[in-house]
Amino acid sequence: MKEMKATMDKIVNLCKSRGFIFQGSEIYGGFANTWDFGPIGVELKNNIKRAWWKRFVQEDPSTYGIDAAILMNPTVWQASGHIESFGDPKMDCKNCKTRHRADTLIENHSKGKVSAEGMSNEEMEKYIEEHDVRCPVCGKRDFTPIRKFNPMFTTSRDMTGEASNEVVYLRPETCQGEYVNFLNVQRSTRAKVPFAIAQIGKSFRNEITPGNFLFRTIEFEQMELQKFCKDEDSMNYYNEYKEKALQFVKDLGLDCEHLRFHDHDKLAHYAKAACDIQFLFPIGWQELNGIHHRGTWDLSRHQEFSGKNMNYLDPVTNEKFIPTVIEYSIGADRLTLALLCEAYDEEVLDNGETRVVMHLNPSIAPYKVAVLPLQKNLSDKAKDVLNILNKEFMCDYDEAGSIGKRYRRQDEIGTPFAVTIDFDTLENNTVTIRDRDSMEQIRLGIDELVDYIQKRIKFN
Amino acid sequence: MKEMKATMDKIVNLCKSRGFIFQGSEIYGGFANTWDFGPIGVELKNNIKRAWWKRFVQEDPSTYGIDAAILMNPTVWQASGHIESFGDPKMDCKNCKTRHRADTLIENHSKGKVSAEGMSNEEMEKYIEEHDVRCPVCGKRDFTPIRKFNPMFTTSRDMTGEASNEVVYLRPETCQGEYVNFLNVQRSTRAKVPFAIAQIGKSFRNEITPGNFLFRTIEFEQMELQKFCKDEDSMNYYNEYKEKALQFVKDLGLDCEHLRFHDHDKLAHYAKAACDIQFLFPIGWQELNGIHHRGTWDLSRHQEFSGKNMNYLDPVTNEKFIPTVIEYSIGADRLTLALLCEAYDEEVLDNGETRVVMHLNPSIAPYKVAVLPLQKNLSDKAKDVLNILNKEFMCDYDEAGSIGKRYRRQDEIGTPFAVTIDFDTLENNTVTIRDRDSMEQIRLGIDELVDYIQKRIKFN
Repeated sequence: MKEMKATMDKIVNLCKSRGFIFQGSEIYGGFANTWDFGPIGVELKNNIKRAWWKRFVQEDPSTYGIDAAILMNPTVWQASGHIESFGDPKMDCKNCKTRHRADTLIENHSKGKVSAEGMSNEEMEKYIEEHDVRCPVCGKRDFTPIRKFNPMFTTSRDMTGEASNEVVYLRPETCQGEYVNFLNVQRSTRAKVPFAIAQIGKSFRNEITPGNFLFRTIEFEQMELQKFCKDEDSMNYYNEYKEKALQFVKDLGLDCEHLRFHDHDKLAHYAKAACDIQFLFPIGWQELNGIHHRGTWDLSRHQEFSGKNMNYLDPVTNEKFIPTVIEYSIGADRLTLALLCEAYDEEVLDNGETRVVMHLNPSIAPYKVAVLPLQKNLSDKAKDVLNILNKEFMCDYDEAGSIGKRYRRQDEIGTPFAVTIDFDTLENNTVTIRDRDSMEQIRLGIDELVDYIQKRIKFN
Repeated sequence: MKEMKATMDKIVNLCKSRGFIFQGSEIYGGFANTWDFGPIGVELKNNIKRAWWKRFVQEDPSTYGIDAAILMNPTVWQASGHIESFGDPKMDCKNCKTRHRADTLIENHSKGKVSAEGMSNEEMEKYIEEHDVRCPVCGKRDFTPIRKFNPMFTTSRDMTGEASNEVVYLRPETCQGEYVNFLNVQRSTRAKVPFAIAQIGKSFRNEITPGNFLFRTIEFEQMELQKFCKDEDSMNYYNEYKEKALQFVKDLGLDCEHLRFHDHDKLAHYAKAACDIQFLFPIGWQELNGIHHRGTWDLSRHQEFSGKNMNYLDPVTNEKFIPTVIEYSIGADRLTLALLCEAYDEEVLDNGETRVVMHLNPSIAPYKVAVLPLQKNLSDKAKDVLNILNKEFMCDYDEAGSIGKRYRRQDEIGTPFAVTIDFDTLENNTVTIRDRDSMEQIRLGIDELVDYIQKRIKFN
């Protein structure tokens, strides 16, 4: 297996020092499990979102995008079941007053050999007692019984502080936006089943447990689609999206050996199948994205709670039915973390020095090219070149320090190309362009640059 | 002045029927002042956001993007002053129990001739009494005194419902993300003052008053930047961003005659200047975006509340100072509405029919090209062409109905180009391409299409 040189500490530190990602509200001591994307990080994440949208929306004529509001009519969360039964099994340590997920305690204690998935609260409590699972903070075993805490953030439209107004939720998942808009999208596009509705947007969950950087955050961005199909075709689409989902993350640069399917043992009563794709993060194998068979559950529930008929009328067979849904969902933040970990490398050079380099796929690299004047008196010419290139791509410009040092800075943030302006440039309008990975340089005309770079940064 | 054919009703109806924008949570009777972007609308809005980012971040080497979390440490809102003094002057009608903004009542009653900007609560109450301003719902004048309601949505990290945990706010503006990250961005990029930090992101305000479609919504997306500069240069940058802001919306397609500057009469104590750019919406002249001189207020307050030194050390003069801030901010949703209103046209054709056409700037048009087989047995060839084009652009595909009807559908959603596949296409690989605005058609080789379209959809 390809060795991964990233550790979580190295990634967190590089992200802060180079402007990928900062702790949220850092000057105020932070705000637990929030992160702010810096100048480099925002480009990386936006490029990842664009690559996903290109692959799954732009290039697929049967998929329609939407962008639904985060705040929805509260009845949505009754229909979805989130108000009634959403949440993780938590227990408090009576000794040190910390709160823990019971399933995580069991899985960590067994070093991943035991899965608590599907265990009842009673089974988990029994396991914790029998195996003497202790509080990871204080080492005692003195827990409250397991309780479920609903991780939905609540707010209210009331502003007086007087009336007890209706509770409003910050959506804990984006997909309800697709379900409630199923009829609107189908009618306005005249789409025929099978078709999909896709969305990229923020969701919120009140996570108390440690987040492991971007892995688990209280607000996170989901990229997901819901395929509406006939039930008899549903397993075909389920398998199709398993393959497409895997192909996508491989194409973005994740190594096959760091990826695996993980089929769920226990299924929701309406589901025929469910699986994750897991990635080998520095913290171990963890869920990267999910593909779920959801049956007719979601549309049926919304039909029940809204009183709106969710039947689709097949124009060929005249059959009326509620479509079955296949869901494919991936977290943009979690994928960003996976790609950072995978791309991170420490290479020993011929001269014995080590260079840190981010081998990011050029299509998602924050900056596509850096413009570097060899000396300060070449700045004017260099800025002319910059002004040509930044019409097309995100560019960096750097005139401080030795050229070697400047190359290293670009390597660290994954810039695939570096263009150096030297005295020959003034004479014949040519520059050197250096490849991040091979470190090889070739000489090109300034008028060839856009084309040369354009061809090498496309996500196909 | 160029006549505007859009009315709010026409825009709302077209947006729903063609999939630009749906009422939020519509199947549940909606959720006041929320809107969901449909398949066409999400592309339009994303294109607008990309155009802004290209102009103000990508093409400006001294501007750095970020994407900060929506949920911030609550102390941020103490420092910003939002907890203490944010909110609109509201009064309740005791007779019909409706709530109104006092300033809006006065401005509507005077038909816009009197501005309540800068009036104290007492002055507004006096004006309402003396001019017999009545409740627009029931016609009585029986109001409570003016009270301020803080429109920040509140939530909490507590999940037990037991403890009275710290109040957490949904950010009412994005710019605090730039201020709290000022040091992180400056250090990680080694930026020199003057430089700007830019952000596109959602903010939330608990608006009770009618929203006028996208004009005022409880969640909205801001595109804004904060320029950090020396105080002596601040008015130059203020004027520069006034011009840049105006140029941007003109370049996107807003008519000069529908745009005007509106300088603020009353300024915050720390500000040297503030103005809006107003657009002539169907509801009248209204704020489209703002340019504000904010002095050293924001960074000084964060220095005070966080205890972190916000001074910038000038590497040339060795001078230490807190930079002055010029803010430029525009709402992505409000701009989307302005562009929809401006683009909407009803044209009487030579045959006496009327076509509805959205003259959207091609760079922001949702679909760049529609692929239309002249007859159904040309579908295979048409799909080959589609699969070439959708690698590059968002495309639509339509094989239902007469070709004239299909052109009209594309006109209504602003698709700048329509490619028709006919029997000649099978013979010589040429197609007709129709221009939305002129309705003229020319014949092109399939291999010329990408280039032809690419050149005409760029935002420069």
